[in-house]
Amino acid sequence: MPVYSISHVENVRVCVVMVGLPARGKSLIAQKIVRYLSWLSINSKCFNVGSYRREIATDTVVDAEFFDPKNEVGMNYRQEAITRATTDMMKWFSDDNGVVGILDATNSTRDRRDKILKLCRENSIEPMFLESFCDDQDLIMQNILDVKTTSPDYLNRNNEFAAEDFLKRIKFYEQVYETMDQKADADLTFIKLVNVNSQIILNRIESYLESRIVYYVMNLHIKPRSIWLSRHGESEYNLTGQIGGDSNLSERGWRYAKRLPELVLKSLGEENKHTNLTVWTSTLKRTQQTSSFLPYKRKLQWKALDELDAGECDGMTYEEIEKTFPEDFKARDDDKYEYRYRGGESYRDIVIRLEPIIMELERQENILIITHQAVLRCLYAYFMNVPQEESPWMSIPLHTLIKLEPRAYSTLVSRIKADIPAVSTYKEKGTSQLGELETGTASKSRDLIRDSELAK
Amino acid sequence: MPVYSISHVENVRVCVVMVGLPARGKSLIAQKIVRYLSWLSINSKCFNVGSYRREIATDTVVDAEFFDPKNEVGMNYRQEAITRATTDMMKWFSDDNGVVGILDATNSTRDRRDKILKLCRENSIEPMFLESFCDDQDLIMQNILDVKTTSPDYLNRNNEFAAEDFLKRIKFYEQVYETMDQKADADLTFIKLVNVNSQIILNRIESYLESRIVYYVMNLHIKPRSIWLSRHGESEYNLTGQIGGDSNLSERGWRYAKRLPELVLKSLGEENKHTNLTVWTSTLKRTQQTSSFLPYKRKLQWKALDELDAGECDGMTYEEIEKTFPEDFKARDDDKYEYRYRGGESYRDIVIRLEPIIMELERQENILIITHQAVLRCLYAYFMNVPQEESPWMSIPLHTLIKLEPRAYSTLVSRIKADIPAVSTYKEKGTSQLGELETGTASKSRDLIRDSELAK
Repeated sequence: MPVYSISHVENVRVCVVMVGLPARGKSLIAQKIVRYLSWLSINSKCFNVGSYRREIATDTVVDAEFFDPKNEVGMNYRQEAITRATTDMMKWFSDDNGVVGILDATNSTRDRRDKILKLCRENSIEPMFLESFCDDQDLIMQNILDVKTTSPDYLNRNNEFAAEDFLKRIKFYEQVYETMDQKADADLTFIKLVNVNSQIILNRIESYLESRIVYYVMNLHIKPRSIWLSRHGESEYNLTGQIGGDSNLSERGWRYAKRLPELVLKSLGEENKHTNLTVWTSTLKRTQQTSSFLPYKRKLQWKALDELDAGECDGMTYEEIEKTFPEDFKARDDDKYEYRYRGGESYRDIVIRLEPIIMELERQENILIITHQAVLRCLYAYFMNVPQEESPWMSIPLHTLIKLEPRAYSTLVSRIKADIPAVSTYKEKGTSQLGELETGTASKSRDLIRDSELAK
Repeated sequence: MPVYSISHVENVRVCVVMVGLPARGKSLIAQKIVRYLSWLSINSKCFNVGSYRREIATDTVVDAEFFDPKNEVGMNYRQEAITRATTDMMKWFSDDNGVVGILDATNSTRDRRDKILKLCRENSIEPMFLESFCDDQDLIMQNILDVKTTSPDYLNRNNEFAAEDFLKRIKFYEQVYETMDQKADADLTFIKLVNVNSQIILNRIESYLESRIVYYVMNLHIKPRSIWLSRHGESEYNLTGQIGGDSNLSERGWRYAKRLPELVLKSLGEENKHTNLTVWTSTLKRTQQTSSFLPYKRKLQWKALDELDAGECDGMTYEEIEKTFPEDFKARDDDKYEYRYRGGESYRDIVIRLEPIIMELERQENILIITHQAVLRCLYAYFMNVPQEESPWMSIPLHTLIKLEPRAYSTLVSRIKADIPAVSTYKEKGTSQLGELETGTASKSRDLIRDSELAK
């Protein structure tokens, strides 16, 4: 009997049909939903009709006129793109056990939406429309400049041309746009977001999965901010190679704690040095000690940030675990994400308890989190979209501050090393040996935070 | 540094101003919100203007005409009632550190709402309007018959008179009613529920606390259903007086497991015997073994239903704990709700991890939960509004099925004993001794589920 997280109570498949004019943040919302649900082990995928159109419309100029409803060539390509996208999506639902598929397109006419509705119903999939409606011109212009000038449609064109052409494209869409209407669409399941989240209309949200998506979307904001992640400083248990427990920092761990305020300042840069952070720690001593020299007033302890509970293995070294529970030791290496320590937790269990933390992180602005190896891996996996099978094997060394800067379609990562040596707590698959001493300036262990991810 | 649950991140005080015609379920929603927030340790209180009016308008007949906007006597009393209620609420915010106050009244005109808005702003309290709008006549009549004929306004009047008079009262309110409007009230924070939850309009929901209330309200339904609670059958650890662990059922525990299907049938009654329940257990063997003879197909395991983690004391008897950690043992008796076992959990920690379970329970219909003593106490406390200082001391004996039937303003409780003896696991304050053998038909220990609560 498998363990259920809250997300698996129902047996519902949902097609989220995005609705809205270009430059309303639809793709951003769609991608965030996919990342969030995937992190919760809900099989989700986004089907972007624009990408399909770019693949097939290679022998024609795609400028604003392409999107004129009177342009037959354009309309044919666009029809072909939506047909391919929906066909692929339905195939994915049936062949790959898809649970939440997102159709990312403008779907701006009632006629188009009716067709998708029909297709969903024929395939026993619940359609949920998600409209981003925006008439705040400042927001729209900001979005155009931020995102669209880097669009693949404007490769090799200057920003000025791109912005102007894109505004023209929007005008063509406006000619036919029909917004979701509380009366005309009263029978449909829909969410309508008005000017980001200043007003939200929810209609016939019935299944649990739909209500989770609604709650997540409700909590998103678009203010720029950063999130900092750090493990606690080296602990006494780290020195002896024991896992779990509630030990104090080692001498070098205390040195990291004292250095941390300086690392944070460095990451903020001169002009932002007065930024006020909120510090979150676990309830364990080593994270609180690590936070103790930070000059920020708001420091909160979260039980949900405590290290993975190793149950009967708490306080043991990996060698002792291998000796005492050889089968468990092997089982964990075989499937580290699912393996649950006797009387303790698995990585999957951590993700479930971190879910409210993620929701709160989405709502907040600048947060510095000091937590533990396994928990940090799970948080990092959420922001960087790291697959489950990889996340428990990521190397997150001690004495290193990680800064995440969420952008429209990527998260920038930077790592600031404290230059204070620490033991390695990284265990390779198939051995009970830990890595060599980490110098705090370079890591020999498998480093899954690659440079290439900096601008993912 | 106190441990924060998700609810304490902000420093916001909210006044929830109910809006809507009579018989729209406002009081039910208000009371549920208070119960939910109180359970999460958020200081909340409901101020029902009708109760204030009944206290002061003792020298006049209160029938429908009393609510005629042209009735000066009635209007004066009603004005006096709202003044008293809001004055008391503001006093409660300042003197009793109130966090969420709910003003339960019709607040049906924009003029009235403007006055409350002004008062809130003068006191630095965030006003959030919560309207229940309903034009489904069947729903309204059902609500009138269910609730209003038992209203204190119609004591000693027959149901027919009550229903008719009440409909007349609603007509008077309709003359002046102004619903919350997406345009006219665009600057206000409000939730508008249309025909229960078939449509929901959210406007300027900004703080976390507000978004929690929204999410809770979104998940409520009014379909009749029951919830069954049971501890696992007596376990091997129960026999030896050890806490925690993951032991098997004792021979008597297995007898309870075999008897359980019969108890559930008995509680359903003849006409509902085919009701399809969903069974939730923890991930521990003793709850799954207890569920093993139940004939229902949907059985889900939840990590969040696991027993309170006793950390370093796991597997010990109370006597051993008293001997090994005498100070902890005393500290726990002094504040059992807050006391956290070394490396383990407190009751407060359980409530935090149960929160998603409660949300899911609100969404679901008939659920049978097989879990553990501490977890069951916390679930029971939610449904029965048991104060924190009492809930860890409630007696929930083994081999007893509890059935809860939520009603508009109360929850009916019935207990069905299996007549299979079991040890007592109830520890009185100030001793490490457990109670005497429980016969399964009567309990000598302090029994906080009193008969008087049956119709609370």
